Amino acid sequence: MNLNFIKKTTVDKKGIFDLIIVGAGPAGMTSAIYAARRKLNFCIVSLDVGGQMSWSLEVANYPGTTHCTGIELTKNFQKHLSEYKVNIKQEEVSKIFRKGNLINVQTKNNSYNAKTVIIGTGKTPKKLGVHGEEKLLGKGVNYCATCDAPAYKGKNVAVIGGGNSGLEAALYLAKYAKKVYIVELGKKLAGVPYLKEKVKKERKIQLANEAKTIEILGDKSVTGLKIQQAGKEKTLKVEGIFIEIGLITKADFIDVKKNKRGEIRIYRSTNNTDENLTSEKGIFAAGDVTDIPDKQIVIAAGEGAKALLAAVDYIHRWDKKFG
Amino acid sequence: MNLNFIKKTTVDKKGIFDLIIVGAGPAGMTSAIYAARRKLNFCIVSLDVGGQMSWSLEVANYPGTTHCTGIELTKNFQKHLSEYKVNIKQEEVSKIFRKGNLINVQTKNNSYNAKTVIIGTGKTPKKLGVHGEEKLLGKGVNYCATCDAPAYKGKNVAVIGGGNSGLEAALYLAKYAKKVYIVELGKKLAGVPYLKEKVKKERKIQLANEAKTIEILGDKSVTGLKIQQAGKEKTLKVEGIFIEIGLITKADFIDVKKNKRGEIRIYRSTNNTDENLTSEKGIFAAGDVTDIPDKQIVIAAGEGAKALLAAVDYIHRWDKKFG
Repeated sequence: MNLNFIKKTTVDKKGIFDLIIVGAGPAGMTSAIYAARRKLNFCIVSLDVGGQMSWSLEVANYPGTTHCTGIELTKNFQKHLSEYKVNIKQEEVSKIFRKGNLINVQTKNNSYNAKTVIIGTGKTPKKLGVHGEEKLLGKGVNYCATCDAPAYKGKNVAVIGGGNSGLEAALYLAKYAKKVYIVELGKKLAGVPYLKEKVKKERKIQLANEAKTIEILGDKSVTGLKIQQAGKEKTLKVEGIFIEIGLITKADFIDVKKNKRGEIRIYRSTNNTDENLTSEKGIFAAGDVTDIPDKQIVIAAGEGAKALLAAVDYIHRWDKKFG
Repeated sequence: MNLNFIKKTTVDKKGIFDLIIVGAGPAGMTSAIYAARRKLNFCIVSLDVGGQMSWSLEVANYPGTTHCTGIELTKNFQKHLSEYKVNIKQEEVSKIFRKGNLINVQTKNNSYNAKTVIIGTGKTPKKLGVHGEEKLLGKGVNYCATCDAPAYKGKNVAVIGGGNSGLEAALYLAKYAKKVYIVELGKKLAGVPYLKEKVKKERKIQLANEAKTIEILGDKSVTGLKIQQAGKEKTLKVEGIFIEIGLITKADFIDVKKNKRGEIRIYRSTNNTDENLTSEKGIFAAGDVTDIPDKQIVIAAGEGAKALLAAVDYIHRWDKKFG
């Protein structure tokens, strides 16, 4: 979702922010709500808002909100945040590093300095890496069934990936599309039995197993998907392709300690300081981008609050030393 | 708040619960929402619902809910939980301990066995320890201004404690009461400048500083408060007394490792298992009862989700071994 809802302000005291929040999913937005209430001089750097939360078909486990779509919950967070003035830079972060006693955040066109940074960039869909994928992005190539399914009413589509997210995407797409192919590399679907059962019963869905994606066809928009099955190439006539082959952690812009999944290692404090600190002083992280095991909206939100409160404490110490 | 809202069920398969959740604040209720969605055979043991959350005058930092009272937010959590069948025991826990491969939870009249337990008992107001306090509880003696202020319309009341919670209580009580005394042991109020300023401006509030509480007077209900000031005893004619001298951790019913504040030490996992585990196998904890530094509703809720997901993993391992 886009960020236009937020009241903008350009107050950058001394050109140094107290805090830069990178990413605006549940973790980043919670950090921002807390930062605004603490009257910090802060900004958010993010291309979009809601992140993975906004892609969810149904959220039924965010406590206090019995049932809603991911987009509705994102709007609730937005509404909450728009109670405050928030300085928002709609840019993609390219590099974050320590520079003396400040943290430098670089985007394509700008460079910002802050006393402290909270990284809440979460996860992003894995790319397929085939010809046509990049060229036809937004022209038939999609990574979010929840967001984009309604555009394919009465059309043929293909979902690439037969895991849980692929099956969920296919079932949702079946509400709109004429026909839904699931293209799966393995012999069998990989999702949980409950979803596989539902997929089996849905007549609109057709499985293409042991199928490798070769190329996405089309010039101005998607016209087909070339796959290889049992050594033979064939083309599925589809106008929409949904790539559901997993998520990757968005943290390549920073050189801090990470685990083998590429998630940022964060410090767990028991003495009231430096909760959610990364291996670099002054740089905190929260939510799905970190090595916190469970990836849940309410957990990410809680972690965003933790990181912010630790950052506030860090800012107080910074001000005493350098302010 | 009471627990009557919850649909009850008495399905205790084999007499052993998968899980017992002790306490129903934001942590316990979040654990319960997740447990219900996972279809665990579980119960909640708690005297009330909402805990500290329900005492809050205003909650403006639970993401997605811009502004509400603590009672409103508690009702939102209730509504969410009442979507599911929940087995609820409205009892106070007296002891929890491991017994073979099970965890035993004892209350005054009952004893329950479970594969695993999540403790979310949070914090409870500190008692004053003076004569009359226990006898007149609920008959003029209160620990929650938000809950009970409206009952004192046009009456004189005293708030004991001049810290932030005492000042907030006094300001809220001033909306209803005729006169509000603040009884503070020290020379000055201890709260933040912003609150002290507001208290100063409120004509209904009168400060009694360097004042020690001696006794709460009354037979069937509170009639006065005996204090000692500058060596002299005097009696404030009040019908309501609000005790606001801080919080204590509710964890005396269990013998696990705790920090010096009496908070249960929990394990922070980085490898997907045993997040929020206490020093006793199978016993997890979440929220303000634990040594997680920051005490916030959204943090407690996130921790409740974490503990539940770790407990689910533990139950799977238990079932393989003993099931």
